[in-house]
Amino acid sequence: MKSQAKIEYDRLTYPTVIVIGGGFAGLEVVQRLAGKPFKVLLLDRQNHHCFQPLLYQVATASLSADSIAHPFRRTVAPMPNVAFRMTNVVGVRPADNVVVTDHGELHYDILIIATGSTTNFFGNKQVEDQAMQLKSISQALDIRSDFLQDFEAALYLSDEAHQRRQLNFVIVGGGPTGVELAGAMAEIRMTVLKNEYLELDSSQMMIHLIDSGDRLLKAFSEKSSAKALRYLEEMGVKVNFGARVTGYDGDRVTFLDGSHMDTNTVIWAAGVRGVCLPGLEQGFHPQANRFNVDAFSKVQGTANVYAIGDVALMTADPAWPKGHPQVAPAAMQQAQYLVKNLQRAEKERTPFGYVDKGSMATIGRYKAVLDVRGFHMGGAIAWFGWIFVHVMSLVSFRNRVMVLFNWAWKYMSWKNTIRLIIRPYLRKTTVVEPHSTVAS
Amino acid sequence: MKSQAKIEYDRLTYPTVIVIGGGFAGLEVVQRLAGKPFKVLLLDRQNHHCFQPLLYQVATASLSADSIAHPFRRTVAPMPNVAFRMTNVVGVRPADNVVVTDHGELHYDILIIATGSTTNFFGNKQVEDQAMQLKSISQALDIRSDFLQDFEAALYLSDEAHQRRQLNFVIVGGGPTGVELAGAMAEIRMTVLKNEYLELDSSQMMIHLIDSGDRLLKAFSEKSSAKALRYLEEMGVKVNFGARVTGYDGDRVTFLDGSHMDTNTVIWAAGVRGVCLPGLEQGFHPQANRFNVDAFSKVQGTANVYAIGDVALMTADPAWPKGHPQVAPAAMQQAQYLVKNLQRAEKERTPFGYVDKGSMATIGRYKAVLDVRGFHMGGAIAWFGWIFVHVMSLVSFRNRVMVLFNWAWKYMSWKNTIRLIIRPYLRKTTVVEPHSTVAS
Repeated sequence: MKSQAKIEYDRLTYPTVIVIGGGFAGLEVVQRLAGKPFKVLLLDRQNHHCFQPLLYQVATASLSADSIAHPFRRTVAPMPNVAFRMTNVVGVRPADNVVVTDHGELHYDILIIATGSTTNFFGNKQVEDQAMQLKSISQALDIRSDFLQDFEAALYLSDEAHQRRQLNFVIVGGGPTGVELAGAMAEIRMTVLKNEYLELDSSQMMIHLIDSGDRLLKAFSEKSSAKALRYLEEMGVKVNFGARVTGYDGDRVTFLDGSHMDTNTVIWAAGVRGVCLPGLEQGFHPQANRFNVDAFSKVQGTANVYAIGDVALMTADPAWPKGHPQVAPAAMQQAQYLVKNLQRAEKERTPFGYVDKGSMATIGRYKAVLDVRGFHMGGAIAWFGWIFVHVMSLVSFRNRVMVLFNWAWKYMSWKNTIRLIIRPYLRKTTVVEPHSTVAS
Repeated sequence: MKSQAKIEYDRLTYPTVIVIGGGFAGLEVVQRLAGKPFKVLLLDRQNHHCFQPLLYQVATASLSADSIAHPFRRTVAPMPNVAFRMTNVVGVRPADNVVVTDHGELHYDILIIATGSTTNFFGNKQVEDQAMQLKSISQALDIRSDFLQDFEAALYLSDEAHQRRQLNFVIVGGGPTGVELAGAMAEIRMTVLKNEYLELDSSQMMIHLIDSGDRLLKAFSEKSSAKALRYLEEMGVKVNFGARVTGYDGDRVTFLDGSHMDTNTVIWAAGVRGVCLPGLEQGFHPQANRFNVDAFSKVQGTANVYAIGDVALMTADPAWPKGHPQVAPAAMQQAQYLVKNLQRAEKERTPFGYVDKGSMATIGRYKAVLDVRGFHMGGAIAWFGWIFVHVMSLVSFRNRVMVLFNWAWKYMSWKNTIRLIIRPYLRKTTVVEPHSTVAS
């Protein structure tokens, strides 16, 4: 027996809109289409929206995974014209208006692709196999378990070279993810490692941030880049510019200039690529790994397929001839424009124009940088601004309270107690010599 | 360079106490030995204490895993005479006063075994392989992901028999874990399934609680047993008494009387067994799977090895000739007695006597049962009492706040938003026929 609400949903005769992906772009579309004359179906491989800008805090034991995730079914429950299905989309057949999923084919009248982006290893299979990445909650929990296990394993190493390798953390990519992660790892060293791993010399833990260019946070102002660098150096992070990683075998990372570094942990945050679906080859831009879209977000060569967010490459916006930055605000603005346009006749639609409201990144307590339309700010005010913007952007009231409480707890107590290791016991096999200084 | 605190710890000339296991018993010992003239080393396979009585709430999406766990290193950090090591103990050589771990041998003067208990499948390998259990955080998260994936998978089943099997939850064991889990699953059906899975008929979800005896909560008063049964039946849980599981192949559970039930999910909560270590065969009680201890918690046949908590079988307490119940209060009282006795000369030690402060179990909102020394209570007051006792027993202030907030949120909004699936996509392979009612 179906519920009354489901019977009513099934009876809707509005055009069917399928939205693939519930990230910032997809979720914004769904929320804006709620109550409008469309029959909406959201598809995602996960059952929850993940607030990606705070993933690095899950990875560094500042936030619990649950506090930055929200189930899609909870979001769509009060929307009578929206349904959700957890499934994997394997392709599109635009000629038939059909999306192909693991669970069969689905017909659409309008298709909105908001599949986002994944880590870009630029074709280096070895690095892809051995390095860690930070695009999903599972990956964040994996990084968390990994560095905590590294600390524990380091205690059993009497050989100093092995111990240094075990405590050497290499982060590749000087964008916001790399910078924020490096700052958070430096806080971990200053608090958790120093106070709770008394057998270890916390200065043995090295944090290397690797960038192939000559400044951090390329999308920010030069002032902000310089300030972020200064903050990181104050916190003891080694920043290596002009360094290009060519390989990583799990023990040693090698660079283009022939140099190398021994490390058990490489976190790769050096680029993203759009998650494109097969079947839309005409609109696919292979260099960018994104779908070419026009000023109305329509995928090139299609009549009723749209792409928004990280997966879309729009070169029609005069201010952004190389396409928009792959960030949440651009994704959400594209979603808002698209929903407005879908409610208008074709010729009344307005082309998208991105309003860059600014960029911000946090490095540590009272240490953040903020760029807003030529205006720059750093320090504690930027840091509180960053907190405010991020907390307000979270999806549910519960998550806002949880995140705020966790931050207050962390920054007042410096205890980072969210330190569950839930992976199998000591995955890495580099523990070479058991010894027993503690109790012998 | 070791820290000053570590150098001071190493220099301690007190007797070395090794505590194996940081559950209720082990953690209580460590907390009581802090600042006392002993050099204490806590060993555990996990890096965190887990508050086991609330594991079922992690499994049923009411609490986040982090809110009931606390890192051992955080607990011992302020204790100058206590250290922690994350390692796996593989055996004991009492003749040499040595504990053998994965990372080498450790010498002790006094050994305290607090390894606790694990799920007892009574030798049934098939059930052990196929059923789920609830003794660790990983297992709780696994149950949570599993039932959420079952809901999603059920949507794709057009065949009613398969759908019923997918939504049939069988819990084996009518003790507190089974009863509390069954009640929480009934709440999930009433809230999450009913409100957010509109395509499913929530009455198709069955919750079977299986017990081989003739009443629930055998350790409680008959009044409480009867009340718990009534609560569960009011919530739509089917309780099957006198049923003994003989097998489970992943699809069908079979009973001793030849009957069977089709289900994708069996959660086994029908018994525990002590986690005994090799090397102490003289003190091992094979039927009970526990270590025989005297009235001072000393393992039979040893001079300086103690066992407390679930792994200890003490028959010397006149009120408990078959040993104490394997519950947290008994474990903690044994720990308290042991620490007091260790500070006394051998002949001044006092034998342990368990003070049963009562038992409580919760079934749902405003539904709990409580037995205190012949006095019985149920309903809302017992429920608030249960909340109070459990929140106050949590290890850290942070966890208390988190748990209270999560409960308040859950019981006011009925939303259970802690619903991350973090396991691989649709593990179970029973999705038989893709179809596409939603958007076709």
